Amino acid sequence: MTHSKADWVIGVDVGGTNLCVGLVPAPEGASERSTRFLRVRPTRPERGADAVVADLIEMAREVSAELAAGGQTPLGVGIGCPGPIDREAGLVLESPNLHWTDFPLRDRIAAELDLPTTLDNDANCATYGEWWRGAARGAASVVGVTLGTGVGGGVVIGGAVVRGASGAAGELGHTVVEIDGRACPCGSDGCLEAYVAGPAIAQRARERLEVGARSVLSASREFCAADVFRASATGDEVGREVVRGTARALGAALASVVNLLSPKVVVIVGGVAASADQLLVPVRREVERRTFRCAADACSILRGELGRAAGVVGAAGVFLDDLRNGRGRLGRSQPRGGRR
Amino acid sequence: MTHSKADWVIGVDVGGTNLCVGLVPAPEGASERSTRFLRVRPTRPERGADAVVADLIEMAREVSAELAAGGQTPLGVGIGCPGPIDREAGLVLESPNLHWTDFPLRDRIAAELDLPTTLDNDANCATYGEWWRGAARGAASVVGVTLGTGVGGGVVIGGAVVRGASGAAGELGHTVVEIDGRACPCGSDGCLEAYVAGPAIAQRARERLEVGARSVLSASREFCAADVFRASATGDEVGREVVRGTARALGAALASVVNLLSPKVVVIVGGVAASADQLLVPVRREVERRTFRCAADACSILRGELGRAAGVVGAAGVFLDDLRNGRGRLGRSQPRGGRR
Repeated sequence: MTHSKADWVIGVDVGGTNLCVGLVPAPEGASERSTRFLRVRPTRPERGADAVVADLIEMAREVSAELAAGGQTPLGVGIGCPGPIDREAGLVLESPNLHWTDFPLRDRIAAELDLPTTLDNDANCATYGEWWRGAARGAASVVGVTLGTGVGGGVVIGGAVVRGASGAAGELGHTVVEIDGRACPCGSDGCLEAYVAGPAIAQRARERLEVGARSVLSASREFCAADVFRASATGDEVGREVVRGTARALGAALASVVNLLSPKVVVIVGGVAASADQLLVPVRREVERRTFRCAADACSILRGELGRAAGVVGAAGVFLDDLRNGRGRLGRSQPRGGRR
Repeated sequence: MTHSKADWVIGVDVGGTNLCVGLVPAPEGASERSTRFLRVRPTRPERGADAVVADLIEMAREVSAELAAGGQTPLGVGIGCPGPIDREAGLVLESPNLHWTDFPLRDRIAAELDLPTTLDNDANCATYGEWWRGAARGAASVVGVTLGTGVGGGVVIGGAVVRGASGAAGELGHTVVEIDGRACPCGSDGCLEAYVAGPAIAQRARERLEVGARSVLSASREFCAADVFRASATGDEVGREVVRGTARALGAALASVVNLLSPKVVVIVGGVAASADQLLVPVRREVERRTFRCAADACSILRGELGRAAGVVGAAGVFLDDLRNGRGRLGRSQPRGGRR
């Protein structure tokens, strides 16, 4: 059996809240810059890893079927997943939000789909996606921050993801903003994630309500970060105060990063970033206050352009980059149409 | 007049407290890894820039004379200076500790010595020096932190100094450790420098004395960071408390950096680092507490090997690297023996 030329990669983004799978066009300069047939399902990690993997495989088969209808086979699969990753072994080492340890996600997916597969950190992928085809397109140095159930980050310098000695570079969510600060799910305290992750934003609002602050939000009902941003947009004082605190913490952490790396672009992506319009101006102000002028002047702070598809696009981009450069290890089989 | 083959570079390190000038052997694998004829004078920046430049030129002429006695001429001059630098124009843009703004240091030195000259940030130079010939020799990714009158930093990835979009990357001293923290000379607050620079360490001890803490240190006498470390070493409670706080702040900032970049080596250099033996263990503990295990395990935190010569060695190393790669701009004349 012969296969037609594969122009598509399956991108997989495993989030603490949602799973996203889509087809990403491989060619450079593709007119379609984002994804086709994007599938989204809730992660519900409490079901256990097997159920999550089964969903991912089903979603990947669905998008493959769309491609097969046009007589094509995908070139391979790129996966992004939270937490430090062992790219060589294809393992998710620690993922506090998914409750996975040393989980062989890459080979589980590769075995079922029988396609070459790579695994990387989800925020590395989202940052790479925005550099490859989004708001930071082609910038010489990019720092990405992903605001969602957790807070992640990625660093792309000269078109390459900075992985560091352990492979786990980019953990911007655990930048310390307050030395004796709020407890973080990672076990440390004062991390950025403890202030600006979705659950942390909701929790900070809840704490204000518990001490009696008046608000359109109610302590007796469930609400999420998006509700806090909506409340703030209508002038609600608790909402505004929590959004202000969110911008201050994010601005302080980004100032540390701008001082250290002087990136050309900082790009904000992820679920909470849908509310980035309320954050960009105060974050920018905080960064300017805390950085040398030349570094602030040289840096644009932007909202991502790819929306929820950033991780999917980037995971596919990292797959193609690994394929081109013979870097990383591809799970299972060698690519059929590859140029290794 | 012909010149013999130049095997030496003049390294110049402009610090807030001391000026250092020495000869650095150019050849890779030189048996002498550090400097020869190292000259040190107090900076006394309150004298103004002209007096500081006159001292630097006199010191450079002294070390040149030593070389001339052996029939040699230096290949050129590498300068390191605090603050963000415009390497292209050879300007010191802002140096809060020296009170210089847009100062054309490179061309002032180059014109007097009539030698090709490069200018870079002092902490970039010190980090590059430790990567080139010191404690971090050859490591794939290195973050340096310089503890002195100010706190600087440098990032060397793949043997290249990371300069970022503005050229001012590496300002680790302005990593935020406490969002509502101590005022920093840079105008922001809660920066690492506001806790662990030499003057900040002494000031924090002074504040303890002012509220009546008993100590071998006395509020009525001048003392410096080294006195605080000495007091701590003898078991003095104020000394111990301030050293503990110093390690916590430094550990928190380094944890942010280890999470972001996962460097192979973090190297601590500069005047205060002479007391690094008291800091290394508690700093390491703080970093481990605040980072993913794989990143902490992959990272060595070391004291620099080159001592006060790190900046001089590194400035010469950056000069040679620029010469080799045609990067940066050399002040005044082109190198006579160069390979451009």
